[in-house]
Amino acid sequence: MVIIPRMDSSLTSFFNPRGVVVIGASTSPEKLGYGVARNLVQSGYAGAIHFVSQKQGQLFERPLYTDLAQVPDPVDLAILIVPPQATPETIKACGTRGIHAAIIVSSGFREAGAEGAALERECVEIGHAQGVRLLGPNCIGTLDTHLPLDTTFLQPPMPTRGGIGFISHSGAFCAAIIDWARRQGFGFSQLVSLGNQADVNETDMLPMLAADVHTRVIVLYMESVSDGRKFVDAARAVTRVKPVVALKVGRFESGQKAAASHTGALAASDIAFDAAFEKAGILRADSAEQMFDWARALETCPLPRGKRIGILTNAGGPGVIAADSLETNGLLLAKLNESTLKALSANLPPAASVQNPVDMLASASPEQYATCLKLLLEDKDVNGVMVILPPPPMFKAENAATALIPLIQDSGKPVVIALLGSTLIEQAAQTFQLANVQTYPFPERAASALSALVKRAEFLESKQTLKVLETFRVSEPKDKSIEELLAAYGIQTAQIKLARDENEAVSIAEELGFPFVMKIASPDILHKSDVGGVLLDIKDSQQARSGYTQMVSRVKSVMPGARIDGVHLQRQIPNGQEVIVGMVRDPQFGPLMMFGSGGVEVEGLKDVAFALAPLNQFEVREMMRKTWAGRKLKGFRNIPAVDQDSVVDVLIKLARLAVENESIEEIEINPLRVLEAGAVAIDVRIKYGV
Amino acid sequence: MVIIPRMDSSLTSFFNPRGVVVIGASTSPEKLGYGVARNLVQSGYAGAIHFVSQKQGQLFERPLYTDLAQVPDPVDLAILIVPPQATPETIKACGTRGIHAAIIVSSGFREAGAEGAALERECVEIGHAQGVRLLGPNCIGTLDTHLPLDTTFLQPPMPTRGGIGFISHSGAFCAAIIDWARRQGFGFSQLVSLGNQADVNETDMLPMLAADVHTRVIVLYMESVSDGRKFVDAARAVTRVKPVVALKVGRFESGQKAAASHTGALAASDIAFDAAFEKAGILRADSAEQMFDWARALETCPLPRGKRIGILTNAGGPGVIAADSLETNGLLLAKLNESTLKALSANLPPAASVQNPVDMLASASPEQYATCLKLLLEDKDVNGVMVILPPPPMFKAENAATALIPLIQDSGKPVVIALLGSTLIEQAAQTFQLANVQTYPFPERAASALSALVKRAEFLESKQTLKVLETFRVSEPKDKSIEELLAAYGIQTAQIKLARDENEAVSIAEELGFPFVMKIASPDILHKSDVGGVLLDIKDSQQARSGYTQMVSRVKSVMPGARIDGVHLQRQIPNGQEVIVGMVRDPQFGPLMMFGSGGVEVEGLKDVAFALAPLNQFEVREMMRKTWAGRKLKGFRNIPAVDQDSVVDVLIKLARLAVENESIEEIEINPLRVLEAGAVAIDVRIKYGV
Repeated sequence: MVIIPRMDSSLTSFFNPRGVVVIGASTSPEKLGYGVARNLVQSGYAGAIHFVSQKQGQLFERPLYTDLAQVPDPVDLAILIVPPQATPETIKACGTRGIHAAIIVSSGFREAGAEGAALERECVEIGHAQGVRLLGPNCIGTLDTHLPLDTTFLQPPMPTRGGIGFISHSGAFCAAIIDWARRQGFGFSQLVSLGNQADVNETDMLPMLAADVHTRVIVLYMESVSDGRKFVDAARAVTRVKPVVALKVGRFESGQKAAASHTGALAASDIAFDAAFEKAGILRADSAEQMFDWARALETCPLPRGKRIGILTNAGGPGVIAADSLETNGLLLAKLNESTLKALSANLPPAASVQNPVDMLASASPEQYATCLKLLLEDKDVNGVMVILPPPPMFKAENAATALIPLIQDSGKPVVIALLGSTLIEQAAQTFQLANVQTYPFPERAASALSALVKRAEFLESKQTLKVLETFRVSEPKDKSIEELLAAYGIQTAQIKLARDENEAVSIAEELGFPFVMKIASPDILHKSDVGGVLLDIKDSQQARSGYTQMVSRVKSVMPGARIDGVHLQRQIPNGQEVIVGMVRDPQFGPLMMFGSGGVEVEGLKDVAFALAPLNQFEVREMMRKTWAGRKLKGFRNIPAVDQDSVVDVLIKLARLAVENESIEEIEINPLRVLEAGAVAIDVRIKYGV
Repeated sequence: MVIIPRMDSSLTSFFNPRGVVVIGASTSPEKLGYGVARNLVQSGYAGAIHFVSQKQGQLFERPLYTDLAQVPDPVDLAILIVPPQATPETIKACGTRGIHAAIIVSSGFREAGAEGAALERECVEIGHAQGVRLLGPNCIGTLDTHLPLDTTFLQPPMPTRGGIGFISHSGAFCAAIIDWARRQGFGFSQLVSLGNQADVNETDMLPMLAADVHTRVIVLYMESVSDGRKFVDAARAVTRVKPVVALKVGRFESGQKAAASHTGALAASDIAFDAAFEKAGILRADSAEQMFDWARALETCPLPRGKRIGILTNAGGPGVIAADSLETNGLLLAKLNESTLKALSANLPPAASVQNPVDMLASASPEQYATCLKLLLEDKDVNGVMVILPPPPMFKAENAATALIPLIQDSGKPVVIALLGSTLIEQAAQTFQLANVQTYPFPERAASALSALVKRAEFLESKQTLKVLETFRVSEPKDKSIEELLAAYGIQTAQIKLARDENEAVSIAEELGFPFVMKIASPDILHKSDVGGVLLDIKDSQQARSGYTQMVSRVKSVMPGARIDGVHLQRQIPNGQEVIVGMVRDPQFGPLMMFGSGGVEVEGLKDVAFALAPLNQFEVREMMRKTWAGRKLKGFRNIPAVDQDSVVDVLIKLARLAVENESIEEIEINPLRVLEAGAVAIDVRIKYGV
């Protein structure tokens, strides 16, 4: 079942207004108010376009009104280029006029200091009171290449039409990317510049772009998040429907806060973003270039059914580079079927290499390119293909392009082109572009694009449902002991209990389970074993009773003056593997769960993985796969296998505990001892919020 | 002292011939023999150019000779485009004619099967006998843009003149890169296509390019290495003089061979390349794009004196991206001086951010760009600058370029430009290019280029000398015990020695040192401590003597039937940290040393670092810095610090042992226990070659 992301209907006027008014339009070409008017008119927007200015006159064959009230119906969207001080009253006028969406282009608000911040708050309050949603301030507006509608002041021409919807926290980055994209040969469906996000933010806009029919993939340039949890929830719904690629910057900005646990110390804020993106199914790119390399492939390529890739080349060197980069990107070189190898051989000279990477040699003709690609795509063990096309020495690259395109368009498998060179492949690049076939200047980038497709496919296949657990909500965790709290969620602890007489020893023993350990409880005795104050391996109630009596009398006879409170009983925990399991509450995304190699060296080894709560089985198994501590659970050399499922269980339960008990800020089980059957928390620390 | 790399004088004819002859020149434009002739003539080569062909006639206004003997003097270089079968005799004819350098363009040799391989061997033998050095076969020749000389058949025009010398194992990659470089705006000094490397290989060519006055940086596309050790030695000499950037592909090709030790299992062949490049001072790039991004910066930028970088931008978003990418690339955001901050404030509007990244706001004029760059460069805590130039909304980007260029050219600090966009910054891109200022399309790539400069600077500063050690060459290691072998190199072992009477016990004890442990030596006794057969903490000779007598008589009385060989003595090793130290002999590069976290989990944790033997202190400390095992030696939380120097010592000595004893294939000390003072090999394994 696909859940349709919730779209906020109060935002539709930003996207499909019946009429638009520019407030602050200008006849001076160097002013932003001129640029916005020009773009609106030139964009080809079919609705009404009106201008409001301080001076009467004409602009682009339209009257300049001096009062918003004079503007005729219908108007749904206002673009404000007025001084910051005049902005609140202008928003009010919009509300009065029945306009429910306003783009505030002007800067001079929160980013300019305390006075601006106060003005910004005033704008939001008035907008709220008047029912006017605000985009910005300090933004460059929106752009829809299909409607079309251009509310920006950017230098024309508009970007090419395409299927990429772009939401950006930075206006300058938008502008630069639009210009860059022109030469890269890809276009956009929508563009939303968020500016200061006084009102509308990335979480609001994601579902809007998800609902846009022309948007096939959403890219997101983020510098922060407004509400981490809401963002994750909204994005989870969106990524079920459309791929989202994000570039989150400011990775290294936030210093790590002092933490009470290893988990807290290791969970730097950017790790929470990693976990949030993973939870939301967002593909996180490492660079702007990578973000668009991925988005282009996701826009036009079918998704692969696996990660085994065929490489088709006319030269050995680039083929080796491609093979390397498949592995670097977590893909596999497909092993070709016998019949494919035979057919390739029949179509290629004897010196050609038919094993993947298929090297057709420099003499490869456009027809050979096409025949071999067809054979590769027909091989059931090939999930996708990278075609390498350096300037062919004997033919024109564009002829190869023409021969390849119909096959690529008809294929249910993704094909990307590593198109090497520049002047000699220019025509081929344009031919591919017109056919919506993605080209990359190097095999490494083509492989990275294929890996994004594989990740997207794997994500869509991984819809694991959360295993339903009974809920044990602890009303006031602070009032409970740590053991009680964990027990309420079904997590076993190595609890220590005090028995004050032999009857109590028996009943505690039966509660703890056998075997157990008994230690004399006395503030006066340091070395308990020296006075016969330790008894191991107590196997039944009978031994518990006699053990109590004998221990107390023995200790009394050896140390007659010592105070004896009774006897401490602790379940005797068998040997097993030890791991760390923890949670730190991220201020933006809530409980961030950690799993990995524990002990005192946890912060040095950094063999840990993170994920956002709540957790399902699939997510926990991912954490285990990412860490040596997790992989080792199934046994390694002379280290015996232990109960992996019990670790999954503990993590799911601990995540549930964290979600349901918001006063807990950090919790850490270090170590959790994982046994042949079951897992026991040996040492637990909890930090409560103030 | 700079060591001048050894140049092979027999290769100079490839680079500066007095005359060139094309053997196999053709009048048919589709033939390679035509392309080579055309390029030679059109390149502007000033020496004599002659053509030999099967048919008489004319080509490019020169006669076609049918016999090499007819060609007039002087001729130093021959380019052979003849069928493989005819190649050996043609090489012979070259030798007879007094030509000592031949480029074999034709393919159909080793790469084509057994017959071709035999022909290739024949070529090499004849070349050797006749004193003719061979480049290729199966290569595209050489190119010198400055001389000029073009021996390739590539489509004109020649690449732009520049300072990058390019050595490539792949001809197709060369051709594609040359075409790509045209649009990227950088040029080459030299190009050498190595082909099958039947004779001349990358190790031969490196010093030749190092000696070329126009080559400022060498890039190396490698698929393999001919002789690992020779390559490292040659490259070490070259990198002292000129930077070398390499792209080594085939990372994942070679399956790991079965190994006798953890070290062997972990040391996949590509790790040896990493270690070799590090030893040689070669910068290893991850992709072709990165290789040239780095090379461009190394060609033209002064080297920084540190890694603190200033960022100058007119927009916040790209500034944040830049700051992130500095950190990702191991650089630091410079902290600006008070006086710089003040001066920046005086030149910028109040809303601008003068803290690094310096955000001048969208209104920044070319003059403000220049003034602020000047201020940043004058700040003594700024080692280099990244200028971010998106299409400025108010000005033309090229005006900013013009204002910045003189400052950049005059500066002793590196400045790179993140020039965002495409159509709107085209003119600016050309202006920067003409001025040899490097631009990158995104801040991430600009940061990566700066990091290459920093790495190069750090490498040049790190000329550490090898600590001189006494040499103990063991004549026949197989005949020695492991303990004797390690002892010969000054590495302490926890050796076990058998004493057969109390006198021997005393002398062994005195040799081993106190305290020590005594255990009964009997094949019949499994649980030695049960029969009083273990004695700990023996502190002096007196205790050794009495211990021996008492232990033997006690065991005899308890187990009268047991055979008793005497008593095993072992030094009692105090607690400490345990690490792994190992060596595996790489077939290409020789002894590859490993250091890291030991124990049984070493292969799972992979907390290990590698370096090529011999080792110096600096290299060992790098290995320690790269691993948690190494960083932990100085103490962590409740883990006490241990003797780091002793580990350095053991690694240097073990590397020496490995170099001097070639019959040892693998050696592993796991664990090496590092004490408060000293380090002791607890368990040692050695595998000898067959």
